[in-house]
Amino acid sequence: MKTNLSYIKYCLQFLWKFASQPSTKLLLTVICLPVLLVFISSAVGAKQPSDDLSLWQVYQRSLQQAKYVDLTHTITPQIPVWVGFGSSTFAPSVNPKTGKPYTYKTDGFEATHYDLSTDQLGTQLDPPAHWAPNYPAIDELPPTYTIRPLIVIPIQDKVTKNPGYHLSVADILEWEKKHGKIPAGSVVFVRSDWSKEWPNPELAKRKQFPGVKLEALKFLHLQRQILFHGHEPLDTDTTPNLEGEAWLLHNGYAQAEGVANLDKIPEAGALVAIGYPKFQGGTGGYARYIAICPPNWKYGVSVNQIPESPLPKAAKPLHWDEKLGVRVR
Amino acid sequence: MKTNLSYIKYCLQFLWKFASQPSTKLLLTVICLPVLLVFISSAVGAKQPSDDLSLWQVYQRSLQQAKYVDLTHTITPQIPVWVGFGSSTFAPSVNPKTGKPYTYKTDGFEATHYDLSTDQLGTQLDPPAHWAPNYPAIDELPPTYTIRPLIVIPIQDKVTKNPGYHLSVADILEWEKKHGKIPAGSVVFVRSDWSKEWPNPELAKRKQFPGVKLEALKFLHLQRQILFHGHEPLDTDTTPNLEGEAWLLHNGYAQAEGVANLDKIPEAGALVAIGYPKFQGGTGGYARYIAICPPNWKYGVSVNQIPESPLPKAAKPLHWDEKLGVRVR
Repeated sequence: MKTNLSYIKYCLQFLWKFASQPSTKLLLTVICLPVLLVFISSAVGAKQPSDDLSLWQVYQRSLQQAKYVDLTHTITPQIPVWVGFGSSTFAPSVNPKTGKPYTYKTDGFEATHYDLSTDQLGTQLDPPAHWAPNYPAIDELPPTYTIRPLIVIPIQDKVTKNPGYHLSVADILEWEKKHGKIPAGSVVFVRSDWSKEWPNPELAKRKQFPGVKLEALKFLHLQRQILFHGHEPLDTDTTPNLEGEAWLLHNGYAQAEGVANLDKIPEAGALVAIGYPKFQGGTGGYARYIAICPPNWKYGVSVNQIPESPLPKAAKPLHWDEKLGVRVR
Repeated sequence: MKTNLSYIKYCLQFLWKFASQPSTKLLLTVICLPVLLVFISSAVGAKQPSDDLSLWQVYQRSLQQAKYVDLTHTITPQIPVWVGFGSSTFAPSVNPKTGKPYTYKTDGFEATHYDLSTDQLGTQLDPPAHWAPNYPAIDELPPTYTIRPLIVIPIQDKVTKNPGYHLSVADILEWEKKHGKIPAGSVVFVRSDWSKEWPNPELAKRKQFPGVKLEALKFLHLQRQILFHGHEPLDTDTTPNLEGEAWLLHNGYAQAEGVANLDKIPEAGALVAIGYPKFQGGTGGYARYIAICPPNWKYGVSVNQIPESPLPKAAKPLHWDEKLGVRVR
């Protein structure tokens, strides 16, 4: 840059010297000034790479004003889980040297030790490797499993009459009659309101619960090319051989289980953010699903509507509850 | 609806009966037909709620073509962790009745038992309750911690010369000179390339590592109102009392730790998706960060560029590696 500028300066001085008449000097100025301005602006422009800020604009115009609704159950040692896995326990993290737990009072911090009997716990994402070892484990899902259009198909009225009702192709077609064709690559959650009783541990023992018919799963994947479906209960259906889950996982499809708050989401028009930790060779995912709903939607919170950073201070401090085996306020 | 239509029908029959002349009948038809059409169209409209599909359009126009880059380390029993927490172990989930692990061969499925000594493991999200019990635990963060503009401030060249270099306010201002003011509510990740040596267990023992100066944290939060910052190492700075982390957590701010692949992300213009399971009273979060980069960005994959559903079948099956204590292919 400096060399270029010196060269320009030298040329201008040289020309100036030879332009004896004032009119020649004026002409020289009129010719040189625009050239100089173009040169300077392009030099400054080269210093500032042109960032592609289109995604930031998308955020500012659309995602920031959207309404965020959590579709995730809180994991505690008491939540419903299949009896075949046994229970999980939480404890304060311990200093291996002293064998004593770290405490806010003594150490200035706390951490948590989890003994989790299964990765099939709470709101989760089943990778196909849960049943089929030749298909991806939770850490092998591609990073494009991140944000998708969210469809909510309601069967809760039918479940009220028949607690063992299963989603059918007719229910899907009824949704499409109201909202249009399900976009390829979407996530489809089935609203049954089964989760309204969560965390009643009895839920995991019930033989009858709302499910999804195999024909519906095949229709969603083979005719509509969805990314994955999700349901509120801990299993896909009530057939003796779990035919729906078997077909999904043995054919390389993932599924969401234990999804919550589907009564707070529009049937069409929301997005879902999909998050889960990346445990190597994991056969289940402790997942986080957050629905991003249109700005005028009646439920949820928008960015800046609540204190986010700093977060609000609570009157009651967190402390370990020995009986519940979990940190509470 | 039915009652309304019957009423209309009744009125029309009544009028028809009293309109004896053909000309009166014609006049009646001309007057009533538009009224009837308006009524029918509004009734049909009421049956079909007008969905707000603007977020789906945002997805189809922008997010679908974006490039997705995972910023998350895979969690294994061998990854670097602070010596004060001890190690974590993975095992196959066991049938509590028989005491035997479930296997693909015998049971048709597998699941994973995790014994995690700490929630401060791998790529994570520190809620302020890790140090300050009056501030939110991981399950108490609002659902708006989901997707944000992502800023990457590079200090890797300075770290090459000085492995203990810490981000300063001058580095932030230099970033702003190139890209403009940091938008409020953003996530700011500090690129040091420290994670390039991951998962070398020695990383957790080093006294010297790239950090973030307290003045930089204060500037980002108090002058720029960011959501949270993140760094590649397991701690925020190398001061004896960890002054940066202390200031953050005791003032209600969260932070990301153990972030990866920041060399694959533009310094400005990407978004970050933030996911973490919701353990009650949790003082750390096994997090997932995925960067969503502009469509022409050189790294990452877009939706539909790779097999997503069904996922690809691997030639080698997953199986338990006794020596590594984890499922591998």
